[in-house]
Amino acid sequence: MNALGRHLLMELKDCNGEVLDDVDALKDALLTAADEAGATVLDESFHRFSPHGISGVVIIAESHLFIHTWPEYSYAAADIFTCGDSVRPEKAAEIIIRKLGAREHSIKEIKRGTLSVEPSVVV
Amino acid sequence: MNALGRHLLMELKDCNGEVLDDVDALKDALLTAADEAGATVLDESFHRFSPHGISGVVIIAESHLFIHTWPEYSYAAADIFTCGDSVRPEKAAEIIIRKLGAREHSIKEIKRGTLSVEPSVVV
Repeated sequence: MNALGRHLLMELKDCNGEVLDDVDALKDALLTAADEAGATVLDESFHRFSPHGISGVVIIAESHLFIHTWPEYSYAAADIFTCGDSVRPEKAAEIIIRKLGAREHSIKEIKRGTLSVEPSVVV
Repeated sequence: MNALGRHLLMELKDCNGEVLDDVDALKDALLTAADEAGATVLDESFHRFSPHGISGVVIIAESHLFIHTWPEYSYAAADIFTCGDSVRPEKAAEIIIRKLGAREHSIKEIKRGTLSVEPSVVV
């Protein structure tokens, strides 16, 4: 059977350092990515650390988008975890790369929940 | 240089179906895991879906813990992303496996942010 979820792990290098340390800019990047991917946003939470660096999550009905930034290295790790066929995680990835101004990136896809069992009835 | 972050991707199979559909039980599992790992909890957000399934995140100062459950498959995907040497993600993984009653599990570790550049000064 197919996997229950698709998980894109993004390594974003040589990014725009100002964006990486700007909560509003990162929030815009993740929310736009979720929206353009066709996802339904349920919640979001962003935290700025001292002296720099931000962690942010957007929970979507189809799973989540996450980002952790290290402005001092011009680096960010981003995750896009989706389930179902209605969302386009590649579209979200494209937007995050562009909004962060990443000059170098790599994306690893991991299939989550590749099961061989049939679903059971849940009371 | 070393990686900036350690990312444990957990596949949890043949779990306790009741726990997988119980927000309080999952919240307890993730918060206990964060605490026992020595992490500092900043925020949490859990969502229950209809007819079943839960997504939950615990944001920690050292990154995040995430879980998505599919009770109908007795399956959950959990992530533990940590940075720094003060937290013990293996301890968190052990607690999540136990609290979910997973009879089968696998853990894949991905190093995040393996950079060759030195940090720059950030204004």
